[in-house]
Amino acid sequence: MKVVVALGGNALQTKGMVPSAEEQLKVIRRTCRYIAQLSSAHYELAIVHGNGPQIGRIIQASEYAKAVTPALPFDVCGAMSQGYIGYQLQQSLKHELNLCNMDVPVVTLVTQVIVEKDDTAFLTPSKPIGGFYSKEDAKRLQREKGYIMKEDAKRGWRRVVASPMPRKIVEIDEIKKLWKDTIVITCGGGGVPVVEKQDGTLEGIAAVVDKDFAAELLAEEINADIFLILTEVEKVCLNYQMENEIKLDKLNLKEAAAYIEENQFASGSMLPKIQAAMKFVRMYPDKKAIITSLDNAAEALEGKTGTVITFA
Amino acid sequence: MKVVVALGGNALQTKGMVPSAEEQLKVIRRTCRYIAQLSSAHYELAIVHGNGPQIGRIIQASEYAKAVTPALPFDVCGAMSQGYIGYQLQQSLKHELNLCNMDVPVVTLVTQVIVEKDDTAFLTPSKPIGGFYSKEDAKRLQREKGYIMKEDAKRGWRRVVASPMPRKIVEIDEIKKLWKDTIVITCGGGGVPVVEKQDGTLEGIAAVVDKDFAAELLAEEINADIFLILTEVEKVCLNYQMENEIKLDKLNLKEAAAYIEENQFASGSMLPKIQAAMKFVRMYPDKKAIITSLDNAAEALEGKTGTVITFA
Repeated sequence: MKVVVALGGNALQTKGMVPSAEEQLKVIRRTCRYIAQLSSAHYELAIVHGNGPQIGRIIQASEYAKAVTPALPFDVCGAMSQGYIGYQLQQSLKHELNLCNMDVPVVTLVTQVIVEKDDTAFLTPSKPIGGFYSKEDAKRLQREKGYIMKEDAKRGWRRVVASPMPRKIVEIDEIKKLWKDTIVITCGGGGVPVVEKQDGTLEGIAAVVDKDFAAELLAEEINADIFLILTEVEKVCLNYQMENEIKLDKLNLKEAAAYIEENQFASGSMLPKIQAAMKFVRMYPDKKAIITSLDNAAEALEGKTGTVITFA
Repeated sequence: MKVVVALGGNALQTKGMVPSAEEQLKVIRRTCRYIAQLSSAHYELAIVHGNGPQIGRIIQASEYAKAVTPALPFDVCGAMSQGYIGYQLQQSLKHELNLCNMDVPVVTLVTQVIVEKDDTAFLTPSKPIGGFYSKEDAKRLQREKGYIMKEDAKRGWRRVVASPMPRKIVEIDEIKKLWKDTIVITCGGGGVPVVEKQDGTLEGIAAVVDKDFAAELLAEEINADIFLILTEVEKVCLNYQMENEIKLDKLNLKEAAAYIEENQFASGSMLPKIQAAMKFVRMYPDKKAIITSLDNAAEALEGKTGTVITFA
């Protein structure tokens, strides 16, 4: 049974912790204990992780240190975050697999994802990235580097980038080749976004691909049986965190569309997860997507918990 | 014909250039033109690159920016440099292969290399890494973080790390699986150095593995036909850059050992390349290693130039 696992931010970092690599490694080790359980239950896994806080810090450090070494472009920082997180994941997961006496290889592929230059997302870039700037510095960056800067709730000015849809995973054939008996960590942070030029060559672009949509595309491409989206909650909720909160066991396309219409799911949080899950079952009406938390993943795959998203 | 290519620093950066990712990409594109030639000539390639200047800058930026975001540990910076350089290489090489109408996949694997904790190199760490510090700061880092700091020719104090021998490539099975019809970029910067703990698990360590020795180990493991070491010179020289300089067409183990005895090869430069080449032909007496420059690589593989290192 093939499962694409999309790891939410809480799989890598705990809110309020010191955002150091050492602290992150502790969280990742715990995360990998749960992932190793899935592998022990003989699910074939591919893993997609987010990179929001990490790429933010890499860019921030790079910009801050530009007096001593040139700042690195966006796409390069994305590739660096894949190396960083992928390394910690592959090392920790291997460790946990060893403890379960599972001899499964784990590998990280540096992955590029093609986006379209005329994706409408580029018209309204809204994803904040990196540190805060004064108005003067923001205007200067806008002028000199063509960055789009927006004021962020009185904390200062920040660069914003677009979040276009992933259209193609460049390294998909290699993922397919490895995937059968290897846990592949791929499309990290949604993949390094690149645009295809007229001559077919690729060029990095400043954008952030949503990791849930990249994971969905991966699940489509490798014909996964289940698309598993791990986040902070055991089940998708209606009226989330309100008195009349309702935990959903299942959700079909029609219901999901209606709840989206009611603004039940927060944009940038649960909404893209629901949308990615819907996209998967729309493509494969006989398959399912599951949204649950990391510690409930194994039970959810057995049908015991989580929210199951189906076609009908 | 399988060839492991070890790329020297000049394949990524030109001396005196602005050390930005944008400038590096230009050099890498040029480098990939030559590598694409080798692929067009139907050599099956695996590529190992250095990361000295890049990891140095990543560490420097990370240390400099520690007021705004925690500094990253050594192993993580190594993994980040693999993402950074691997991404640029895989994108550029794919571009050049397209131009040659070659449909060959190119992929970067985040690679760990096991070193031994009791490698004698740890007794005399000598590889300088990162920025310069005042004597006071150096002493503080030594005390607080256990760094080994050395004074560097009056420019200040720098951290030094050991350069132990690579013993095992952790992801070797996946490299073998991909290698047949894919150009694999692996063991970047000599691999992320890890030590194996008693329970068999791995842990990152502050060290730099020589990329020529990591490439040699790779060439051994995948049973390469030729181990190709690319550097700045067309041929290995005796009395290098002196009036009586002699360019060598070939070199056997016995001759190489004698020249090393004469101190003909600069340590940290040509010496490790010669030693890695010797190690390869000692393991495979019927095979050969070649040392030449990037622009002579294709001709060297045809036996027209370069220095060929053989067993006898």
